[in-house]
Amino acid sequence: MRKIKLTIQYDGSSYHGWQVQPQGTTIQGLLEEVIGEITGERPQVTGSGRTDAGVHALGQVASFDSGSVLANDVLRRALNALLPRDVRITAVEDAPADFHPRYDAARKRYFYLVANTGTVPVFIDRYVWWLRARLDVEQMREAAVFLRGEHDFSAFRGAGCAAKDPVREVYILEVERFDRMELLFAGFPGPFVKISAEANGFLRHMVRNIVGTLAEVGRGRMRPEAVEEILLSGERRLAGPTAPARGLFLEEVSYTL
Amino acid sequence: MRKIKLTIQYDGSSYHGWQVQPQGTTIQGLLEEVIGEITGERPQVTGSGRTDAGVHALGQVASFDSGSVLANDVLRRALNALLPRDVRITAVEDAPADFHPRYDAARKRYFYLVANTGTVPVFIDRYVWWLRARLDVEQMREAAVFLRGEHDFSAFRGAGCAAKDPVREVYILEVERFDRMELLFAGFPGPFVKISAEANGFLRHMVRNIVGTLAEVGRGRMRPEAVEEILLSGERRLAGPTAPARGLFLEEVSYTL
Repeated sequence: MRKIKLTIQYDGSSYHGWQVQPQGTTIQGLLEEVIGEITGERPQVTGSGRTDAGVHALGQVASFDSGSVLANDVLRRALNALLPRDVRITAVEDAPADFHPRYDAARKRYFYLVANTGTVPVFIDRYVWWLRARLDVEQMREAAVFLRGEHDFSAFRGAGCAAKDPVREVYILEVERFDRMELLFAGFPGPFVKISAEANGFLRHMVRNIVGTLAEVGRGRMRPEAVEEILLSGERRLAGPTAPARGLFLEEVSYTL
Repeated sequence: MRKIKLTIQYDGSSYHGWQVQPQGTTIQGLLEEVIGEITGERPQVTGSGRTDAGVHALGQVASFDSGSVLANDVLRRALNALLPRDVRITAVEDAPADFHPRYDAARKRYFYLVANTGTVPVFIDRYVWWLRARLDVEQMREAAVFLRGEHDFSAFRGAGCAAKDPVREVYILEVERFDRMELLFAGFPGPFVKISAEANGFLRHMVRNIVGTLAEVGRGRMRPEAVEEILLSGERRLAGPTAPARGLFLEEVSYTL
């Protein structure tokens, strides 16, 4: 047996999230199915973490054990030939026998896209949160400062979060404004707002709750300083609403192997 | 009554093309339906030309007559509120009573995208032709030169084309190669090949037949000079296969009003 590490890109729009569910197609379930077809085994695929229904990934990481002797690139192409075109394996690598995509993850990076536009370009409709109220990015940046560093993120933790420890260290939390988006070698008028977040881990819905709260600040419904108060309170009900799944991307999972 | 000009962006993936069909949803049919809902009239929407099923548009132009007194921007927002999110009205303008989107069009510009990559980024899968065989863009450019200018394009004309005159003047036919594509503020590795075409009009399937033929040249299956021979022969069977609809975009329709 060997341990195989996968890097996976997906458009989550048509899926019931990462994790296998009793009902509905999930990314994990799809992978187990197509790996099984190729290897004749019944693989258990472990991911770096769940993504919710509608969340996308540029670089989700997963692993499974296999006795397959297929070369990694052959396996990659075989998997992509069987997978639907909204799920792509971008890398297949050997990993140490004790590699665990979740426990060994040192950092995760997400980004979130807001279309702060009159209309959303149809070509990215599934990839952005459409928010017409004009966002004040300077105010959002002031608020983001309070969330950087090591904190108890209970106030930004979704219901049903299974993590024992609500403390996470946020290395990056940035808010950028773009006047246009390049796409298909054409330019589409903005403004667009991109929120990037990197941490040693995220609680359930933590990115979406942070984005929802920063959006409240951007819309002028909340002062930037209120975000510090919310963080210190540990009270989920004080933070902003959960931002929709469709604008969220798991960008990269880093390992210190 | 007044004449109203619409500029329309759409993702054609889910539609049976532009023109109303006995079966299946079309962009024209959708527009007539939602305009009817708003104005209470039974509008006849005229487009600048048909697009095939799966073809996309950044700037399709259409018009209709209406007695509606709604302000143009109110009408635009009302239409977008009723339309599905893969069809967007980007502009509503007044036009002269005798304006005709097809007969008055002075130029049309299309572009076509080829992903010449190992895998296609999932986020643009519906917007590119995936062609793994490496394309020689220099050869394609040499071939494109023969197609610029005024010619009888019978050899690049699809079956069932209703145009009486097969002569068109091609102002622009360019082939560009890109090492990466910017998208969602992230970069995706290429190469990608973009073919841009502008003419005073296009015969049925003309862009897709030109792209299919240039791809034959790019793959080394046809010499660039053969394209001139095909053009002069007027024989459709000598040209390359029709490129798939999914990579084609109607970019802009220009009027000299």
